[in-house]
Amino acid sequence: MLFRQLIDTETHTYSYLLADQNTGEGIIIDPVITHVTKYLQLLNELGIQLTVSIDTHTHADHITAASTLKAETGCMIIQGKESPAKGISRHISEGECIEFGQHALKAIHTPGHTPDSYSYFLASGSEPKVFTGDTLLIRGTGRTDFQEGSCTLQYESLFNKLLQLPEETAVYPGHDYKGWTVSTIAEEKRHNPRLQVNSINEYKEIMDNLNLAPPKMITTALPANLNCGGS
Amino acid sequence: MLFRQLIDTETHTYSYLLADQNTGEGIIIDPVITHVTKYLQLLNELGIQLTVSIDTHTHADHITAASTLKAETGCMIIQGKESPAKGISRHISEGECIEFGQHALKAIHTPGHTPDSYSYFLASGSEPKVFTGDTLLIRGTGRTDFQEGSCTLQYESLFNKLLQLPEETAVYPGHDYKGWTVSTIAEEKRHNPRLQVNSINEYKEIMDNLNLAPPKMITTALPANLNCGGS
Repeated sequence: MLFRQLIDTETHTYSYLLADQNTGEGIIIDPVITHVTKYLQLLNELGIQLTVSIDTHTHADHITAASTLKAETGCMIIQGKESPAKGISRHISEGECIEFGQHALKAIHTPGHTPDSYSYFLASGSEPKVFTGDTLLIRGTGRTDFQEGSCTLQYESLFNKLLQLPEETAVYPGHDYKGWTVSTIAEEKRHNPRLQVNSINEYKEIMDNLNLAPPKMITTALPANLNCGGS
Repeated sequence: MLFRQLIDTETHTYSYLLADQNTGEGIIIDPVITHVTKYLQLLNELGIQLTVSIDTHTHADHITAASTLKAETGCMIIQGKESPAKGISRHISEGECIEFGQHALKAIHTPGHTPDSYSYFLASGSEPKVFTGDTLLIRGTGRTDFQEGSCTLQYESLFNKLLQLPEETAVYPGHDYKGWTVSTIAEEKRHNPRLQVNSINEYKEIMDNLNLAPPKMITTALPANLNCGGS
């Protein structure tokens, strides 16, 4: 299996390219619109046929490349069934799989940052991986103070779903602002300050007092992403 | 083996943390001074005793954290024997190994970007890896127009050394400006535009016509790095 982490340094967004090297089928997770030319170059050079573009949720901080990649490659656009966006090819639900060659991503519904937040678990490869979008970040968690966010639902997504994955699972988030690229479930269980709580109320107290500024690009990104980044 | 790629998004510098998870011994390659607090946090959380800080060469675009990490952790500072810097604990030569637990990095002298440029090959782990500093970049090569650079020496380093490594070797460079994180020797052989030349003269023609601006931080970074980033 081919696996590449790709970075948009402007918005600190991580995108992921996965492909079956035997069949050439590939999936991209959380692609950023300003990088389409580079994605197409990489797909071409590596001989990958992009079959699926996934957004882990409706983003408010960058514009997705999904619609443009669909136009350029014919790939499907997948988002959670709760997504408000138009132009989605397949609406996914908890437990469903997205296959590419001999591999498959399993959808885990992890609402909280948004109602349509999904994580994706990949069992194959050199180690199990989970792509956590803006639900579980490295030493952090996604904010829950807008876009119908819910810290109660996020607590359940984190503790009852993501932290139940095998401890050796590599955690690949949707963003990191410190330049860290990956973590593990074991590491986040022990060292993520927001996960050292004993109750949902303790978690709520942390999340209710973050006092974050609105995302810089929300007024342009959100409307565009309600159309999968298309015009 | 634990392996982490770490990013300084300000200078697009990649640093690498490697550790033997049984013994806890760890090495950092090309650490950036502005990230020391985060490195120390990560070392502490992961239970890693930093034994070595390596700079692949004397950098002109960022200040190394080597000296500060030595003061904080007692690690050795390793650079190539051609390095003009003061404060180096061990000067390395072609073919020598740097051990950490059951693993070892093998030094490959790859002059060209600078006379003291070294790459480091790691045979163990899920796939072989080479840390190429500013010699081999993803779809590019390091500039050779200052700091006693030599495109002739770089051509030999690239074609006679790095491209002779196993094709499946993962290439981890010192920088990437597109947000790509890794490549392979096979991929660079086929798709790196600077490596599609038939002679040293063709390579020289490319490198002589890059017309690059001087690195932004050269006037502060180079003097600091001549003291391993110390004051």
